[in-house]
Amino acid sequence: MGSQDKALRERAAKVIPGGMYGHQATGLLPDDYPQFFAKAEGAHLWDTDGRRYLDFMCAYGPNLFGYANPEIDAAYVRQLSIGDAMTGPSPKMVELAEVFVGMIGHADWAMFCKNGTDATSMAMMAARAQTGRKTIVLAKGAYHGAAPWCTPRPAGTTKEDKANQVYCSYNDIESLEAAVAKAGDDLAAIFAAPFRHDAFIDQALPDPAYAKRARELCDQHGALLVVDDVRAGLRMARDCSWSLTGVEPDLSTWGKCIANGHPISALLGSDRARKGAAAIYATGSFWFAGAAMAAGLETLRLVRETVYLERIVSLGEKLRTGLAHRAAKAGFGFRQSGPAQMPLFLFDDDPDLRKGFCWSSAMLERGVYVHPWHNMFLCAAMTEADIDFALDAAEASFGVLEREAGGLAPVEKMAFLRG
Amino acid sequence: MGSQDKALRERAAKVIPGGMYGHQATGLLPDDYPQFFAKAEGAHLWDTDGRRYLDFMCAYGPNLFGYANPEIDAAYVRQLSIGDAMTGPSPKMVELAEVFVGMIGHADWAMFCKNGTDATSMAMMAARAQTGRKTIVLAKGAYHGAAPWCTPRPAGTTKEDKANQVYCSYNDIESLEAAVAKAGDDLAAIFAAPFRHDAFIDQALPDPAYAKRARELCDQHGALLVVDDVRAGLRMARDCSWSLTGVEPDLSTWGKCIANGHPISALLGSDRARKGAAAIYATGSFWFAGAAMAAGLETLRLVRETVYLERIVSLGEKLRTGLAHRAAKAGFGFRQSGPAQMPLFLFDDDPDLRKGFCWSSAMLERGVYVHPWHNMFLCAAMTEADIDFALDAAEASFGVLEREAGGLAPVEKMAFLRG
Repeated sequence: MGSQDKALRERAAKVIPGGMYGHQATGLLPDDYPQFFAKAEGAHLWDTDGRRYLDFMCAYGPNLFGYANPEIDAAYVRQLSIGDAMTGPSPKMVELAEVFVGMIGHADWAMFCKNGTDATSMAMMAARAQTGRKTIVLAKGAYHGAAPWCTPRPAGTTKEDKANQVYCSYNDIESLEAAVAKAGDDLAAIFAAPFRHDAFIDQALPDPAYAKRARELCDQHGALLVVDDVRAGLRMARDCSWSLTGVEPDLSTWGKCIANGHPISALLGSDRARKGAAAIYATGSFWFAGAAMAAGLETLRLVRETVYLERIVSLGEKLRTGLAHRAAKAGFGFRQSGPAQMPLFLFDDDPDLRKGFCWSSAMLERGVYVHPWHNMFLCAAMTEADIDFALDAAEASFGVLEREAGGLAPVEKMAFLRG
Repeated sequence: MGSQDKALRERAAKVIPGGMYGHQATGLLPDDYPQFFAKAEGAHLWDTDGRRYLDFMCAYGPNLFGYANPEIDAAYVRQLSIGDAMTGPSPKMVELAEVFVGMIGHADWAMFCKNGTDATSMAMMAARAQTGRKTIVLAKGAYHGAAPWCTPRPAGTTKEDKANQVYCSYNDIESLEAAVAKAGDDLAAIFAAPFRHDAFIDQALPDPAYAKRARELCDQHGALLVVDDVRAGLRMARDCSWSLTGVEPDLSTWGKCIANGHPISALLGSDRARKGAAAIYATGSFWFAGAAMAAGLETLRLVRETVYLERIVSLGEKLRTGLAHRAAKAGFGFRQSGPAQMPLFLFDDDPDLRKGFCWSSAMLERGVYVHPWHNMFLCAAMTEADIDFALDAAEASFGVLEREAGGLAPVEKMAFLRG
């Protein structure tokens, strides 16, 4: 840990509970990972001690076209000077809804909000209002946000917060059918991640038969299908991620990169969910602000007009192939799961992640920020040379791991994974 | 309604459920109120048909130092080019927590989020985690956000969403004591608005005896006191609004104007709530972004270093006195309630607001945007001349109402208020 980062942590420990909170707290990362960053540009981050990293987290998703993208930020700043948070929305809101709906196959309408959790909460409420029913089917372990009804940590929640929820296993048709049967005549919606991107375990692409069955079950039971595309949206397709499975949801949730990191999220829906969506009361002080909408319009233009998607897939495949080759050469069982542009890396026989932590720290030391247990994200600002740089770092890091593997200490803070 | 606004509404009706949603939907305003705004500067708004308004809504609160405030927006834009949403927070987060905590008497720590609802949800969760109890006491009709647990409209919610809540009447000590008694040994927190600022009814300042009793009851029962300062924070005091009553809460929630409209909200707390706050999992994609924090730092600097507060109070008092004089001269019972800088106007004998709608529409026609049933907000960009302009408009509007009062049609959409 650098001295500046250490000093900031000491100050933070006084004025922020636990020193940091939420998904950007580094408590479950190797000790040498910086908590704070001083600067970001394109595909790179600088920590407060001046060290530069090629960043494979992309702000946990928001960075799709490069940090401080000049075109997108210019659109934001331009609208800021015209009108951002006002007493009513700007015309940009209508324009963004039209453009976004025009790009997403299943969508007839859009509502904008700030957090991914806002969008998933609204999807749940809209489905309940539309159907007059309560029960939601969700996959065990899937992350749909951090409100009391969905937060993965029980502290401060009550059992009523998660009432009217039934769980299935992702990609397991029988468990999905059993969950739907359990919901009986009260099924309001089936929630689905576009692929399994839970932390700590291998990712899994959606089985098209599972997606199709979810659609059928919703249709048979008069329920709504929700695809939570907050994390993966626009990195899998220029449409809803499940368009790749041929299945259209009734509701989809969006956030993260839809304005390349400017704060805006969205619920999109079909006419089958419009009445429910119109009935709910959901709002926020900054939801109607124009600047993030202007940035969203510019981001969506780049989505339509550039080869960003082909680029991140191609760079992701180059990275995946190169890593597989280097891991095999070094003799490690190194599992790369999920889409190449949103990879997750896990080592075989690594129950408390001691290998993953050692390798990730070695990567960090070589200027490449990878995550040892969360899926990562590629962005369109990355280059072939960046991937070569990462692969060189990986080769050296596998070497470090080879030398140290025999004597690695247990990672006590990850011991919960063993249980 | 102007032709541009009408055209935008028609487009919006196709791609936004109900044409608009949330607190900025104009469905419950007079028909001539614009839904969309093209531009904002200082204390003024322009609709999409080019009409200019002196804006007494201030974006429903966020505008405290003037729309497009040059110093605050420059701080935002500067940080945007350095690093906004990154893979970790910037040092600005620590700086903002230190500065904010240093200004708010009861606070030892801060957590930042995006919506006011995020902050109130976190306050509830932190209180439950801290105390190991579930029950929250709230005042009937008080607005604490739009999540399933607090949204004022039941569509899409379940009875479990509002479980573990007991209601009292604001400023009614007996009802507060009864609610606390009902909570028994499960009282986690008492929530309080800084003053009663419910829609449709007269506002009421807090009875200091009520505030003191809430504090005592929390202390006696080992529960936490939460002041929801999202709407009123920094407009009542340079400290928590209840500092005016001499009562310090354990938790306070903030949003709206803490970065003058840039998207950020906050939960502040004392050490008595630190452990609970550290235990909960609450997060959002954009919560750690630096630009809104930089804007917050600049806003708080202006709070400390300018007479903005004395200015909005003095302008509010000038407005109040002038309106009272003109209303009396015209013979109307015109009730102005709440703090002068956050006024609410209601006419006597006006159960479906037909007088309020007529007068407000006349004000709008004269270039003054007032709200017929929601509290309003003054901002420091307003001038004595602006208030004179508003008073001239008011005099003329009372004249319009005098001429039309006998023949006003019922306002059918507000008929629910009669029931």
